[in-house]
Amino acid sequence: MTTDWNALYARRLEWMTTSAIREILKVAQAPDVISMAGGWPEADLFPVEQLREVGDYAMAHLTREALQYGLTEGLGALRQTLADYVTEGGTPANIDNIAITSGSQQALDLMGRLFVDEGDAVLVESPTFLGALQSFKAYGARFVPVPLDDDGVRIDALEAALRAERPKFMYILPNFQNPTGVTLSLERRRRLVELAASHGVPILEDDPYGQLRFEGEPLPSLLSLDAALYPENAAAGAYLRGNVVHLGTFSKTLAPGLRVAWAVAPPEIARQFAMAKQGSDLHTNALGQAMANEFMCRGWLPAQVERIRRTYLERRNAMVEAMEEMFPPEVSFTRPQGGLFLWITLPEGMDAVALLPEAAKRKVAFVPGAPFYVDGKGQNTLRVTFASMGPDLIREGIRRMAEVIRDAMA
Amino acid sequence: MTTDWNALYARRLEWMTTSAIREILKVAQAPDVISMAGGWPEADLFPVEQLREVGDYAMAHLTREALQYGLTEGLGALRQTLADYVTEGGTPANIDNIAITSGSQQALDLMGRLFVDEGDAVLVESPTFLGALQSFKAYGARFVPVPLDDDGVRIDALEAALRAERPKFMYILPNFQNPTGVTLSLERRRRLVELAASHGVPILEDDPYGQLRFEGEPLPSLLSLDAALYPENAAAGAYLRGNVVHLGTFSKTLAPGLRVAWAVAPPEIARQFAMAKQGSDLHTNALGQAMANEFMCRGWLPAQVERIRRTYLERRNAMVEAMEEMFPPEVSFTRPQGGLFLWITLPEGMDAVALLPEAAKRKVAFVPGAPFYVDGKGQNTLRVTFASMGPDLIREGIRRMAEVIRDAMA
Repeated sequence: MTTDWNALYARRLEWMTTSAIREILKVAQAPDVISMAGGWPEADLFPVEQLREVGDYAMAHLTREALQYGLTEGLGALRQTLADYVTEGGTPANIDNIAITSGSQQALDLMGRLFVDEGDAVLVESPTFLGALQSFKAYGARFVPVPLDDDGVRIDALEAALRAERPKFMYILPNFQNPTGVTLSLERRRRLVELAASHGVPILEDDPYGQLRFEGEPLPSLLSLDAALYPENAAAGAYLRGNVVHLGTFSKTLAPGLRVAWAVAPPEIARQFAMAKQGSDLHTNALGQAMANEFMCRGWLPAQVERIRRTYLERRNAMVEAMEEMFPPEVSFTRPQGGLFLWITLPEGMDAVALLPEAAKRKVAFVPGAPFYVDGKGQNTLRVTFASMGPDLIREGIRRMAEVIRDAMA
Repeated sequence: MTTDWNALYARRLEWMTTSAIREILKVAQAPDVISMAGGWPEADLFPVEQLREVGDYAMAHLTREALQYGLTEGLGALRQTLADYVTEGGTPANIDNIAITSGSQQALDLMGRLFVDEGDAVLVESPTFLGALQSFKAYGARFVPVPLDDDGVRIDALEAALRAERPKFMYILPNFQNPTGVTLSLERRRRLVELAASHGVPILEDDPYGQLRFEGEPLPSLLSLDAALYPENAAAGAYLRGNVVHLGTFSKTLAPGLRVAWAVAPPEIARQFAMAKQGSDLHTNALGQAMANEFMCRGWLPAQVERIRRTYLERRNAMVEAMEEMFPPEVSFTRPQGGLFLWITLPEGMDAVALLPEAAKRKVAFVPGAPFYVDGKGQNTLRVTFASMGPDLIREGIRRMAEVIRDAMA
């Protein structure tokens, strides 16, 4: 007899992407397809020479830090560098506020592990990042969706949701949200941290794209606005005792393959992150941590980020111009000031999934929007990225998409 | 109001190490202490120059594989290399049998995630690896301990345990077990895979140390013995459809800081590993995977392993000789043929924890054995490593330990 494995499962997990998306991603990989379906940063912008230099330096001169087992909390030097980085951004923090994670995906998992039991409510923006839904769902989360508009999550609807029930936390992507590209306005940020405080419901602020602002003024993080509510804490050196866990990452600025990210949190939460992480993967890969730290300590990050911003701005401009010129006027779309994504809304009643076969025929790929919703909405929406190709290809891709849309509308 | 975080926890996790061990590890870090309390490989044996070379090569020539987002299942080239490695070892496997994990710790977590619900039984060797206990406990595992002797887990006791209840799986460290250093005999391996088959209870074979055999003949893995029970599967190209999930790692042969390990499993289980991993950390760091693959493809692994073996053999010899010479005859200890650890048993009635203050005074450190048991046994046991210092220091450390033990016995 061999094991009946099926009888043993405690839980069976599923791929993050729905089968519809997996199909389109297969199409998108065909060599002559113009794929705007991806969610990855532009690999040509990875600072390869600099990463080689810090990698070589770390292995040669920081051998134990880079290659031996490390602490679950993360490499001390990197945690300090990140605490300083947060502090320089105007929010006093120290090393006890920082927990290193294996990509922000792991931080989402740890939040689920620590706070979510079967049936617990988690408030999410609608639409929101699939990977977060997957992480929380693994622990049995029930989602409370709150709609977005061009200024980010709608605070009136959020307040109504908080009055109706008490979620474990609110999952918010304030900058250039995935999938919509919209940014939460300053006024709404203020109201959101006040609501978190008055309802005692913490905010999980996921900010992978914040540094990639290529237009407009940076807005204060939810972390910093929350900290400002308790000046007595910072004055007493008790940094970040409030209601926000803030997630940052090197995946969009250096390279995602390093899998190095961080959480900024109240010290007790950072400590719980480490305890929950210890059994998960012991610690984040040490070489990646040492490289990221050395990269920051050499002062290379600002120039690298500037390079990415310039490129993505040019690409976003190309995409928005092409859409304005070629899309039917009934089709609307966001105009992101940073990040990787732009969100398209087709006329009411149209179905983005139904466009996929024709798009495949015309060799252009996008991601249908419905899977990003937890409540079955968004059939007439879709996500595209402007990050992974140059202006000419973007223009040609939008030309093909415009044809697909016009044909479907006719 | 600020969040009452304490009211929100779904589960609070704890450090892997008990407070007793954490205290001793603090002592062990003092600069003039001879610490045999560690569980880490010798950093001086990391192949630093070669890792720099493959790291540089991977970033320069395999830029996307090493730095971009990757597949959750792992880097295809590395999975193929590992499938070939398993096949060359005599057990036909293909890429669908391989799942890359972020250290073997993550594989333990994924096993818990997939198979363990609150109250589910997991059969473990007694004593066993703390990190495994922690990973399974996070999902609510209840442990069924089975005692070990010098030939590994006792099959009579294991069979009785299987008759009494039906665990989700059996967690077995067959080679140079952590913490005891003992190896499961060939005869017991055969009986174990037969019992797994007849009871339909799978084996999780954790083999971090198997390559580090410095004495005696290598024994076949449980994976290979299990596969041999179903020759018709291999003949039909349906590799590894049996009862074993086998875990291997680069942590003890290359460097633990890379956090690259792998599971060899039935294809459906490898696939479930990936699905469960996707929400955990998306994928294992790509640079470490590309480096490990390049290291293997260049054929550098055998010489590196040989170098480690020679060093650890010399150190184990130094430790065993010093113990034979200096320990009271009432103290027994294992004579591991590989790995990092050696296990000491004090006379019945003695308590290893009670020796810690005196050991600290004499500036020598070890790990008390009791925390490795799930049933409160092992008070008179302790674990030492011979891997992390040269013969002279080992001899001096054992001299100090002998004094501590003699004093306590007197």
